[in-house]
Amino acid sequence: MSYTPLNERSVAAFLATVPVIAARLGGSPEAWDVREVGDGNLNLVFLVTGPAGGVAAKQALPYVRLIGESWPLPLSRAYYERLALADEAVHAPDRVPALLHHDDVMALTVMDLLTPHRTLRGALVEGERYPLLATHLAQFLADTLFFTSDLAVPVVEKKARIAAYLGNTAMCRITEDLVFDEPFFDAPMNHHSPALTDIVKAFRTDIPLRLAAQGMKARFLAGPEALLHGDLHTGSVMVTADDTKVIDPEFAFYGPIGFDVGMLLANLWMAYLAQPGQRPADAADPWLLDQAEGVWTGFAGRFAGHWRALAPDAEHGALHALAKLDPGLRTAAIAERLGAIWRDAVGFAGCEIIRRILGLAHVADFESIADEGARADCERRALRIGRALLVNRADFPDVEAVSAVVRLEAVAA
Amino acid sequence: MSYTPLNERSVAAFLATVPVIAARLGGSPEAWDVREVGDGNLNLVFLVTGPAGGVAAKQALPYVRLIGESWPLPLSRAYYERLALADEAVHAPDRVPALLHHDDVMALTVMDLLTPHRTLRGALVEGERYPLLATHLAQFLADTLFFTSDLAVPVVEKKARIAAYLGNTAMCRITEDLVFDEPFFDAPMNHHSPALTDIVKAFRTDIPLRLAAQGMKARFLAGPEALLHGDLHTGSVMVTADDTKVIDPEFAFYGPIGFDVGMLLANLWMAYLAQPGQRPADAADPWLLDQAEGVWTGFAGRFAGHWRALAPDAEHGALHALAKLDPGLRTAAIAERLGAIWRDAVGFAGCEIIRRILGLAHVADFESIADEGARADCERRALRIGRALLVNRADFPDVEAVSAVVRLEAVAA
Repeated sequence: MSYTPLNERSVAAFLATVPVIAARLGGSPEAWDVREVGDGNLNLVFLVTGPAGGVAAKQALPYVRLIGESWPLPLSRAYYERLALADEAVHAPDRVPALLHHDDVMALTVMDLLTPHRTLRGALVEGERYPLLATHLAQFLADTLFFTSDLAVPVVEKKARIAAYLGNTAMCRITEDLVFDEPFFDAPMNHHSPALTDIVKAFRTDIPLRLAAQGMKARFLAGPEALLHGDLHTGSVMVTADDTKVIDPEFAFYGPIGFDVGMLLANLWMAYLAQPGQRPADAADPWLLDQAEGVWTGFAGRFAGHWRALAPDAEHGALHALAKLDPGLRTAAIAERLGAIWRDAVGFAGCEIIRRILGLAHVADFESIADEGARADCERRALRIGRALLVNRADFPDVEAVSAVVRLEAVAA
Repeated sequence: MSYTPLNERSVAAFLATVPVIAARLGGSPEAWDVREVGDGNLNLVFLVTGPAGGVAAKQALPYVRLIGESWPLPLSRAYYERLALADEAVHAPDRVPALLHHDDVMALTVMDLLTPHRTLRGALVEGERYPLLATHLAQFLADTLFFTSDLAVPVVEKKARIAAYLGNTAMCRITEDLVFDEPFFDAPMNHHSPALTDIVKAFRTDIPLRLAAQGMKARFLAGPEALLHGDLHTGSVMVTADDTKVIDPEFAFYGPIGFDVGMLLANLWMAYLAQPGQRPADAADPWLLDQAEGVWTGFAGRFAGHWRALAPDAEHGALHALAKLDPGLRTAAIAERLGAIWRDAVGFAGCEIIRRILGLAHVADFESIADEGARADCERRALRIGRALLVNRADFPDVEAVSAVVRLEAVAA
């Protein structure tokens, strides 16, 4: 069978041919409820429920859904997504949806139906709070990033894994263009609040800023430290009061650890910076800043713990070879490595904030602010912080230093 | 035919079956002169001359020749060597021997016979001077490293090239162990001058030093910036008065540009630091320091020139995408990038110096000093500099800063 895009009518008949899925749903396909809910930018997503249970079936389209057939995008991204889902499940099984079935020809991935989960970004826009959020996100970051890195994985195996993802070039290219390049020149698909024209103009001739963004791009292009999710914003996280799942790893590749960390932190900081526009009464509520701090400190502590817990006599990654012999060296190496990850994360966070306000793909945090002036005010504050994170990275030695500046900007509102 | 190690008797009969080689040599195989000259640590090397010309035939053994069958090493290194020779020849055809024939099953690579070339290291030990040396080495570095990097190569092609070399893990592993790890603990095959026991002991508990070496190892493991030679010391360079060729790229892989640069500089600095022991009358002769300066400034200038010369409308590497639109950004990006390469090179040079004195594979520059005390004095000075390069990298903002310290140490002799 060749590739055919499914629709709400054809998907049940297709899934009925897969015994494990048919059994999961139960009953006859005619009785299954099907809803297409792909509100993302790229794919079809069908939620299918039957008498016995539910599944989510995600199918790639051969183009960018948000734009249309004029922007082709290879179906192979479905292959990399199911590969990454499986790899992530090895290290963080509780933090990803279980992979039930995949069909590489149909570019189709069938997973557990996450219910009653909702998208974290939408929930944050509405002011929802989740007590386990930071803990769960730190766990996902530390477990997937540490255990796919040169610290944990023997070098021959690590290089084979790098190779397995090297073909996901089309998705990396989206990031290269949209995150590091286009926000800094008048790319055709950029858009921004009209009130920001002055800062847009200033950014385009801001050599230190553009140089810093290109420096982060160089890290992104040539820093295969660990298997990254590659698109870890709050729209890739599904939550309930007691669960957190990370979805949509179709941008997965081996890259710098700080990229996943920094992108996630940036989205939490943006959620905080949007509060004055969304809900003025909550403008100073520190919960979102606390989550960002909790994600970083939780990640750092857990990453260090994984390192210390590596058995000294086992074959681990090349970077553990010496440190395992000498606890003093190991302690110093942990601090040094976390410092390097933090510095990368700060720079990547700066890029992410700027591109979400000036580039193609914006975020609901700001877009949902009805008052145009209030929205632009929030965005301007975020842009100032984004620039500072990129250009003055040394001013932010730790996550608390970022919180202090973000809080100051929000209070100035 | 399956793999069989050749010998001085069988190699002519084998090469006679390859028409292009038989024609190059001329006459009948019985008349060919064959000499096995593999004085390196790994392979068989046959120099074959006939009435019409000569070739060099290099065959990998399934083990490390220096050690014996107890240290197996895959024949695939011959495959990566001929792959790299071909890639280097695209960008720096005058600086590598022409590849005439390869046989992946026999792990055999047949190249132009370089004559009357000799090994640079041996020539430097004897005090020979070559007026074009720095220019030629800078050309090899800039041309092979720039034109295989993210500056020149579109990203899809670049990732395919990274993948093509990712399997050369066994050779990378030698570097990981011998350069970054073993010199800093009591590895079984380490050896050193008896008079250095105090500094050996100090290094093993020197956390800042070992941390810096591990930091360089992390760069080596996850920094695929360009196609590296991977073993660019003065024993991998063949010279005459007017020619310079770089041989033996069997350690080739995509890694950090500063690795090739720093390893070569370190070997020139070591040659200088060995002068007081080799030829006390030449102890202060600055020629070798001048060569190191010439290699760096020549490399940096040529690398920058290649960048500025990229056609603005062509498809180049991802790192050129924005800079080509804005000469101001490009100028800043060139300075930033060369600064980053320099900082890497300084750290890698520090590792290379230390491992050549305390690790398994020593260099003739020091080994050829007959007086044990004089040798240890030279080595001790080199070790101090190696440590400073690794730990105090910020003290060496440019190549002249290294020259100044190296000169001071040599004068102190």
